[in-house]
Amino acid sequence: MKQFMSDDFLLDNEPAKRLFESASKMPIFDWHCHLSPKEIYENRQPADIAELWLGGDHYKWRAMRSFGIDEEYITGGASGHDKFMAWAKVMPYLIGNPLYHWTHLELQRYFGIYEPLCENTAEVIWKRANEKIAAGGFTPRELIDGSNITCVFTTDDPADTLEYHKLIAKDKSFKCRIIPAFRPDKALNVELPTFLPWLESLEKAAGENIESFAGLKSVLLDRIEFFDAMGCRASDQAFSYVPFTISDDIELELIFSKVLDRQPVDADEIDKYRTALMCFLAGEYAKRGWAMELHMGAMRNNNSAMFKKLGPDTGFDSIGDDRIAFKLSRFLDCMESQGRLPKTILFTLNPKDNYALGSMLGNFQSSEASSKLQFGSGWWFNDNIDGMREQMKALGNLGCLGKFVGMVTDSRSFLSYPRHEYFRRILCGLIGDMVESGLYPADFETLSKIVEDISYNNAVSYFGLKQ
Amino acid sequence: MKQFMSDDFLLDNEPAKRLFESASKMPIFDWHCHLSPKEIYENRQPADIAELWLGGDHYKWRAMRSFGIDEEYITGGASGHDKFMAWAKVMPYLIGNPLYHWTHLELQRYFGIYEPLCENTAEVIWKRANEKIAAGGFTPRELIDGSNITCVFTTDDPADTLEYHKLIAKDKSFKCRIIPAFRPDKALNVELPTFLPWLESLEKAAGENIESFAGLKSVLLDRIEFFDAMGCRASDQAFSYVPFTISDDIELELIFSKVLDRQPVDADEIDKYRTALMCFLAGEYAKRGWAMELHMGAMRNNNSAMFKKLGPDTGFDSIGDDRIAFKLSRFLDCMESQGRLPKTILFTLNPKDNYALGSMLGNFQSSEASSKLQFGSGWWFNDNIDGMREQMKALGNLGCLGKFVGMVTDSRSFLSYPRHEYFRRILCGLIGDMVESGLYPADFETLSKIVEDISYNNAVSYFGLKQ
Amino acid sequence: MKQFMSDDFLLDNEPAKRLFESASKMPIFDWHCHLSPKEIYENRQPADIAELWLGGDHYKWRAMRSFGIDEEYITGGASGHDKFMAWAKVMPYLIGNPLYHWTHLELQRYFGIYEPLCENTAEVIWKRANEKIAAGGFTPRELIDGSNITCVFTTDDPADTLEYHKLIAKDKSFKCRIIPAFRPDKALNVELPTFLPWLESLEKAAGENIESFAGLKSVLLDRIEFFDAMGCRASDQAFSYVPFTISDDIELELIFSKVLDRQPVDADEIDKYRTALMCFLAGEYAKRGWAMELHMGAMRNNNSAMFKKLGPDTGFDSIGDDRIAFKLSRFLDCMESQGRLPKTILFTLNPKDNYALGSMLGNFQSSEASSKLQFGSGWWFNDNIDGMREQMKALGNLGCLGKFVGMVTDSRSFLSYPRHEYFRRILCGLIGDMVESGLYPADFETLSKIVEDISYNNAVSYFGLKQ
Repeated sequence: MKQFMSDDFLLDNEPAKRLFESASKMPIFDWHCHLSPKEIYENRQPADIAELWLGGDHYKWRAMRSFGIDEEYITGGASGHDKFMAWAKVMPYLIGNPLYHWTHLELQRYFGIYEPLCENTAEVIWKRANEKIAAGGFTPRELIDGSNITCVFTTDDPADTLEYHKLIAKDKSFKCRIIPAFRPDKALNVELPTFLPWLESLEKAAGENIESFAGLKSVLLDRIEFFDAMGCRASDQAFSYVPFTISDDIELELIFSKVLDRQPVDADEIDKYRTALMCFLAGEYAKRGWAMELHMGAMRNNNSAMFKKLGPDTGFDSIGDDRIAFKLSRFLDCMESQGRLPKTILFTLNPKDNYALGSMLGNFQSSEASSKLQFGSGWWFNDNIDGMREQMKALGNLGCLGKFVGMVTDSRSFLSYPRHEYFRRILCGLIGDMVESGLYPADFETLSKIVEDISYNNAVSYFGLKQ
Repeated sequence: MKQFMSDDFLLDNEPAKRLFESASKMPIFDWHCHLSPKEIYENRQPADIAELWLGGDHYKWRAMRSFGIDEEYITGGASGHDKFMAWAKVMPYLIGNPLYHWTHLELQRYFGIYEPLCENTAEVIWKRANEKIAAGGFTPRELIDGSNITCVFTTDDPADTLEYHKLIAKDKSFKCRIIPAFRPDKALNVELPTFLPWLESLEKAAGENIESFAGLKSVLLDRIEFFDAMGCRASDQAFSYVPFTISDDIELELIFSKVLDRQPVDADEIDKYRTALMCFLAGEYAKRGWAMELHMGAMRNNNSAMFKKLGPDTGFDSIGDDRIAFKLSRFLDCMESQGRLPKTILFTLNPKDNYALGSMLGNFQSSEASSKLQFGSGWWFNDNIDGMREQMKALGNLGCLGKFVGMVTDSRSFLSYPRHEYFRRILCGLIGDMVESGLYPADFETLSKIVEDISYNNAVSYFGLKQ
Repeated sequence: MKQFMSDDFLLDNEPAKRLFESASKMPIFDWHCHLSPKEIYENRQPADIAELWLGGDHYKWRAMRSFGIDEEYITGGASGHDKFMAWAKVMPYLIGNPLYHWTHLELQRYFGIYEPLCENTAEVIWKRANEKIAAGGFTPRELIDGSNITCVFTTDDPADTLEYHKLIAKDKSFKCRIIPAFRPDKALNVELPTFLPWLESLEKAAGENIESFAGLKSVLLDRIEFFDAMGCRASDQAFSYVPFTISDDIELELIFSKVLDRQPVDADEIDKYRTALMCFLAGEYAKRGWAMELHMGAMRNNNSAMFKKLGPDTGFDSIGDDRIAFKLSRFLDCMESQGRLPKTILFTLNPKDNYALGSMLGNFQSSEASSKLQFGSGWWFNDNIDGMREQMKALGNLGCLGKFVGMVTDSRSFLSYPRHEYFRRILCGLIGDMVESGLYPADFETLSKIVEDISYNNAVSYFGLKQ
């Protein structure tokens, strides 16, 4: 029986342990996350572990609701202490949940606490963790520096002025590069009430009026150039379904006029608008060597009552089961046949699509990049041992695992970097199992290179960071 | 090499074995099955093991057909002895099938027979098993009493008079409570030829005519109250697809008139009728604290020729692959936003939907109950080692496994209770593996509580049995 | 740590090793492949290992593209040597890919080379492999004879004259039987530009004009009789989706007229045409005891630019995610209810459908054959350890694994027969694990029979080869 989450956590044989020595030495390049540049710039000292853990983490909120904790102790008015106690009470019942491991990894790595968190140990851990926080080292920049992170891609709206990115860049004492990524979801979600207010903010950022679809594209192109000048190397878009209906300029202008005039647009028109905008954007990404991330399969804001109360990203999203293969293939082919397909990373939230996506990559690979088309790591509801193993096994079976760009935190929390350790342990465990079983030669020079590449080097090459 | 189905069956390490000591002591609460209250009441002595095993078990019938056995020896006129011999011949080829384990668990637990069943051993086993049956202990109530079952929820039509439940309740020597569950499938399946005859039987049970949709709802409400008075705590509905199309009272009455007049109704009208009825029923379940079970994904009666010959539930059903996430989410949200969402248990027959369903739970949890939304155990075609492990792993990854309400037999057979043992061994095996690998602390106080809760206590709390 | 791909490759315990002794002795019956009868007849000496490996293997081409190799070294003008070097460079990065194992199995079994292939070893292996080829034993017939193959089903168009089958049959020194299988895809794909040219070739083969749908059926019936006379026992059809829309003769003739007149036909008409033709063909297969193979779920020719450049079957296909359960069930039921359902083998390219398909078999089994409905082995993108294990586990859970007709190469390469060894090792590994864990008795007489049957005997019985 192995000790709970010891040095050999997730490493069940000698090859795995040996490979983790290589992987764990590598720095972190967090090329997709939701960290706030403002918070990084302001670099505020957190009040306590409740703020760090429960202030905005909708993963933990969901888990607490699942246990049956009252909302008062989740997003409500209860004290930080009482929320922490509620969380501690839930912990033991989260057997088999990645939150159980993330929580303990964070306790171990940031706080040097090795006792399992539960009701009995909660008061002591609350006290010790808060003492440690008070002693320093827990501001955003300290946490980033302490985690050996060389670069972070934040997720930013086209209308964003990127002022915090500029301010952070001026602080030469802070080694980690904080680079924006272009997230045009609000431009794509033309049917939502957020669209027109967003358009106004875009006009403001651009200093010009947008009165046509052509005008929108022109302004977005300016923003892309601005992001590019700020070092941007990636875009990200989330799709509940994959749009692909071809239209023409005249119809697109008509659709856009309707939107500006607050007239209704139907599903087909939305699809045409989205398709045209994505084709335009993808082509511009390709020109600049940006990678295009497509996050597919999230069904958001399912609980209307809680959406009204708490807004988006508060733990009421889940996995959709739409068909994605056909339209996605047509979209990629459309870009490829014009020579405008950018480097592309396909993420699926529904693991049933692992094989459809993992095989689709192969249709569009080329010598422009090693694995120009990538299969994104197990994400969100798949960011766990099973989900990450299955994603890597699918990629291994179908593509070129050795060129995988690896893990992203996709996180809002400055304490989430041990998830890279978690990923690397799972990776080394998976590969270690292959070597142990005679499925791959015990050539540790090659093997170390592979795990180091997947941990760090592949992503650096893939995104082509400008020096 | 472990001995075949020995004491350590499915328990591959010390933590698993130790946990099974706790789990195996717990009684059984069979909150979803298809046992016949009439058979329980009549308590008839079975003729032989062929009657017990092959009299109505469509799982075994399918397996025999898959091997190539002639229907004569399955549902046809062959003798019980010859059917048993045919079954024995098939057995060894069912390697990897849960029937192989169920059969041997039943031979071991009920008959004390440890030899594997095959052609060579069949005559001896036939004789020994039948001697044992003749010696007594094999009537329905004896089998239930002998299996440490405290409560059984049967599955009953709204038109049912529940007379056998009443009669059973009068027998104070029989300790196990037999409680009805409300299954309004015939009310929902408005398009089937069974609908109007069923409506007549409902009118008869209620003693009033039903001439409108409002009238139907009123009578169903009476039946719900009657079931509630009889101790009912759960409803169950089967959907080949999930309906959700909102309509209004006027249109619903028009649709219902058409049905009464034997005019055709189209798919959209059926959907509207079903949606309205489900919303009504769900609200009434919520008021009474009943749990709503939704069994999704079965495609029934696929073989028309055999349906004509043998009727439903004879082994010609399989797994559908419809999309379920979007409409199911809207249905649950519709109820939740009105404060009328009952405790709900989602079952999927297609394991591809494990992650879509397992994540959907989290959108609607609340402090009304521990894991108010539950992910139902691996069911029917998933009632096997892989299916149950995958369901529990998905629930562990996505929700709160420690609050899982656990196993149901879903069975028509009084010999099926070893399936609870099977489930508990798989559960303890899964959790034992986590402890053995250092993924969870070796805290056996907590661990024992968790496996005991999942085996029994969680379901008792969840359904809120009235004393 | 096990040695890399040693004798015990994929056999992790004593029962597995013992069973593989039985399985490995069995001959091979390759009942579905794409070997060229012409190449078998001509029996040409290959130039070098580059020709054998990289001349037409789109699996390897995809892998090379995924790594980022330039097309010049894949299908372009580079020399065989340089293409081989490029392949060697990719190899180590294909960790977890079946190509890694296939390549080394082929090196071991055909060339006696046990060093892993990589850049460093490539020149030596190039030299040694080519010397071995030059020394003889590498013509198609020598390779087939050396692999203990008793029978091969090729894949042939209805318009094919089967002249090479006739020529091969005359060579009495060649023991392996080369038998055609009937592949009417071009007849079904009425919407493609290939249809009318194909129809002409069919007219030519049949020596009569086809001016109606009835005429087409009549000619296809003649071809079926011709194939039957040539020993044919199987048909094969590929569906990106499963058609099932019932029509009538008048409408079908109208649709067919439109096609002949080069007028457009819509999706519904195509579906009706396909359904009618499949129903006709299936009935004729049934009459002759042929097996009908249905390969479902491939989305082909996704990259238009490369399709124009290289044509079909060049590595630009992937896995679709259409719904298949409902229409497939209706098609099978339609045939069954007329007593015209042939033996049928269902293959899915998308592993998410394993349980839907695996359970559907059971709806249509009968005593006409042992497992008359079969679940086809993990195929194409599933032809790997995970895919084959999952397919067999699904079949085990849902059906009768002991009657499984087993592995097919589905290959264009004469070097692909070690894939049968791969399959048998995986099979014995899977069953060995069950025995080792006490899930099945250690009855090696029965177990050996089961693995021998799945390796060879079941397929021989199932297809009912004429002597």
